[in-house]
Order: sequence, then C-alpha cells, then structure tokens
Amino acid sequence: MSAIVYPLPGNEVVAHSLAAEIDGEIGKLVVRRFPDGESYFRYETPIDGREVILVASLDRPDEKVLPVIFAAGTAKELGASKVGLVAPYLAYMRQDKRFNPGEAVSSIYFAKVLSSWIDWLVTIDPHLHRRSSLDEIYSVPSATVHAAPLVSEWIRGAISAPLLIGPDSESEQWVAAVAADAGAPFVVLEKTRRGDRDVEVTVPDVDKWRDRTPVLVDDIISTARTMIETVGHVRAAGLQAPVCIGIHAVFADNAYVELKQAGAGEIVTCNTIGHDSNRIDVSGLIASAVRRVLPI
Amino acid sequence: MSAIVYPLPGNEVVAHSLAAEIDGEIGKLVVRRFPDGESYFRYETPIDGREVILVASLDRPDEKVLPVIFAAGTAKELGASKVGLVAPYLAYMRQDKRFNPGEAVSSIYFAKVLSSWIDWLVTIDPHLHRRSSLDEIYSVPSATVHAAPLVSEWIRGAISAPLLIGPDSESEQWVAAVAADAGAPFVVLEKTRRGDRDVEVTVPDVDKWRDRTPVLVDDIISTARTMIETVGHVRAAGLQAPVCIGIHAVFADNAYVELKQAGAGEIVTCNTIGHDSNRIDVSGLIASAVRRVLPI
Repeated sequence: MSAIVYPLPGNEVVAHSLAAEIDGEIGKLVVRRFPDGESYFRYETPIDGREVILVASLDRPDEKVLPVIFAAGTAKELGASKVGLVAPYLAYMRQDKRFNPGEAVSSIYFAKVLSSWIDWLVTIDPHLHRRSSLDEIYSVPSATVHAAPLVSEWIRGAISAPLLIGPDSESEQWVAAVAADAGAPFVVLEKTRRGDRDVEVTVPDVDKWRDRTPVLVDDIISTARTMIETVGHVRAAGLQAPVCIGIHAVFADNAYVELKQAGAGEIVTCNTIGHDSNRIDVSGLIASAVRRVLPI
Repeated sequence: MSAIVYPLPGNEVVAHSLAAEIDGEIGKLVVRRFPDGESYFRYETPIDGREVILVASLDRPDEKVLPVIFAAGTAKELGASKVGLVAPYLAYMRQDKRFNPGEAVSSIYFAKVLSSWIDWLVTIDPHLHRRSSLDEIYSVPSATVHAAPLVSEWIRGAISAPLLIGPDSESEQWVAAVAADAGAPFVVLEKTRRGDRDVEVTVPDVDKWRDRTPVLVDDIISTARTMIETVGHVRAAGLQAPVCIGIHAVFADNAYVELKQAGAGEIVTCNTIGHDSNRIDVSGLIASAVRRVLPI
C-alpha cells in the first residue's frame, strides 16, 4: 500500500509535491494551540497500518518539536508500519560540542529526542561542522541531500552573466564548486589589514566585472550579518546589486528587510522553509532521498 | 554532599526557598534564545557529581520542554548522581484519552518524553481525571502534593466570614472539603432548567449569606470561563465581590483582566506559576515532597 504523507502546518506545498513524486497519498492532520499554550494534535486521514511520512521543517524548533512527537507517537499507536520524518530544515546543528564549561550539547540531545520517536529522517543540507554525518548523532537511519546543484541550475537559468562572490577565503571551496557547476566565474573578497581597527575589504579585478551580476550564496540566511556585510562591500566597489541566494530561509527577526535595505538585488531561497523568497523547489530532491530510505 | 537546586527562568523564588528548606545549594544556569529561535543552555554553577534538582513550572510547555531536556541531559553528562524535576505546575494532563479518532493522547507522550530524561518528578495538584496517579503515565518515581490545606489555611487567616461557593454539583465534594478545613460554610449554585436555552442559576439561601465574603476555589485558572460565570451569578444574587482562588495561575490570554472586570474581588493563587496574584507559598510543600523522593 502507498505511503501517506502528512504535512505539519506550513509544509503543505512540499508535502503535496512529495506525495505526487512517490505516488503516495496526502493526509490531513490538525495541530492547534489551546488557550493555555498546550498543543492539540489529530490525524484526520486514517493511517490503516501504512507507511507514514511526516513533513515538518524545524526552523523555530522549540514550538514545533512536541507536535512532531505527538504526530509520531500517535501514528505508531494507530498502527503505522513505519514513521519517517522529512525535515527540509533541521534545527540544533550548531551546538555540536561544549564550547564553554557547563554548556548543553544541544545537537546531541535534540537528535536523541527525535530518534526515539521516528524510524528514519530525511533532510537537506544540515549544518554539519564537526560531524561528518548525521549518523554520529541520530540513531535512526537518515538520508541527507544537497541543494547546491539546484542552486547552480537556477543561476544558469535566471542570470545571464553571473559572478559568484565568496565573502572570505574560507568560503572559496564552496563558492568555486557552485560557480563551476553554474558555468560562471567567481571571486573571493580580499581583506587588507592596515591596523587593529582598519581593515579594507575589496573586490579583486573589480573593473573586469562591472557588467556581471554578483551572486552571493550561503547555506542558511539567519541574521544575514555576513551577507549584509558582503553586499555592502560589493556595492561600495561599484558593482551591480548582488543576487542573494540562501538554501534555508531562516531570516531571524528583521533580517529579510535589512538585507534588502543593505542593497541586495533579488533574494532567492529554496523552499525548505516557507518564505516569500522561495524560488527553488526542493521536492524532487526530497523525493529522491525518501525513495532511498523507504525500503528500510 | 548537598543537592544543587537550579531554577529554570521564572522559578527563582520557589527554587531559593526549596534550597533553603532542604539545606541544598542554589545553582545558576543560563537559558536564552538565539535569533533563529533555538535555545542555548549552560550551567554556571558546576555540578561535581552531586544530586541535581531542576525547578521548572511547565505552563506554556512547548517553549519550555527543550531547555528542561537540555538541562537534564547536560547534568547527566556532567556527572550528576541523579537529576530530579520539580514542576510546580505540570502540563499536558488533560488529553488523557483519545476522545476522537486520530487524536494524540498527549499526556502519555509528554510523560514519556520527560521520563526518559529525568530520574524523578515532584509536582503539585496535577490535573488527574481518568488516571488515579502519575505512575500510570510517568515511568520515573514521582511525588504529588496537594495545595488544598494551604488554601484553607489562607482563607482562615485572611477572610473573617468566608462562604465557600461551588459552581455546580460536581464541585461539591472538593468545595466541601476546603470549606470544612477552613472552618467555613459552603453552598453550591443551583441550576433550574426552564427550557433548552433557559437555565436559571441561583444561590441557595441567599439572604442568609449577605454578610459573608464569597470565596471561589479552582485547581487551575486558565481561560477562567467557569469562574467568570460563577462570579456573575454571585454578584447577580446581590452577594459581595467574591474572592477567587486558584492553585495554578495559568491565566490564558487576557483571563486575569477579564476575571477582574467580571466583578471578582481579590484574586489569589499559589506560586506554582509566577504571577502577580501569588499569595500562597508552596515551597514548604515542595520541600516535603522532595525529601520523600531524595533517598531514591
């Protein structure tokens, strides 16, 4: 029997595409808050012993984790054969070690919480730093997919003369790869330190690139600080308004507006987190990963 | 070695009193939100292999559960001998069965989540309906204490001629007990149904009680609907403004103001949830329960 794909609130678009791609059924559920702040959860579409796929992007995770747990627990009680979680954006990846004494290594605890309720996990570009894979923290099988090829494809299709820009030398490898894939040149901003508080940031070969559209790419746009700074340097050098691309549109507080005000051109994100800037659809990518884990 | 009592934010008063009562040390911790909505947690006072007591009232639970999990996980990793949770108010007690098909029995899942991170639990007047004790859903040892004697004691001390009032016949047993303990008379409102939509609610023997101060008592004041209605009937009968007492000051949305506007006199609660209306201190009660579980 086909799988049922249940979107938690806000995940309807990706869930519908996913259901179509894997020949699954789309299911309905209800999540709401009681006046006292507790969450209510109910499946409207019966489960009937089938494979259940929950789609829940986990930005702003604290409010979302109990509904996901309630969904997983209820599905199992109601006889689901397996309960998988598709989290296009996965939270709590940054605090992956104890940087200071007494700190919670939240990435481990969050993984442990989720792993005890779900049977498998699919996500896109989790923010892996000191971990080489999710398997180090998640005890359930997982599949990770990367949106970079979709980003390169979007750049190829939408921008006639792009110039990829890396904010610093650390970003060179990642920017170089996206640029190569997009068939575009790239530069990395140069820092010249003249004193403790006097650092000049310049675009190399700036005259050569005046006719090109600068393109900035990052995995997560959260506070957008790095991107806003980079936009400033690019505009100060006299280049065109840069297109700003992020895989995950977290946009903390007022970051989206601030990035626009800083002089960004178009702001483009993948639909891993629902946002006005979503231009790149990841559901095909998710479907390919789900197909890999489904026979588990 | 003495236990360390760590208050999660908002639980400082009760935690300090508890630490004093059990001869424990008070510990410091930091919980804050990153701009992207994730929670950061750190112990400032070292744990040193000691008994750890977290104090965290769990009203508005969805935002609070991950910090409590991070606190418990970190304490264990840092060598705490045992990690207990004092939750003066315990959430997710209402949905204790599947009322409609497909519903999450959230009380079970919430209990399972907490039970897998803590070693014991202490709480005050959990909202038990169809369960006879927390042991049916919590797999860790727990101790439950009741605030009713403190409420009766407060009534005895603060109100010279109280009249306990129950909103309906269901409340009779509970109101009768508090009244007896407070050395006060009680009445239960009478409903006379004249038609489908015509129900008259009256105070029996109303003339007899004009000189007394009506007192309403409930376990949780959340939306305060029942209490507001009861206040209305009491005022309509021409009695004095009733004193409204709740054990747990949940006060959803604007409920506190609405209860005042409905004609309530003084509004009094226990300090299981920090609120301006807190007048009855439960820390002695908590300490007695903690002493019972500590040798576990």
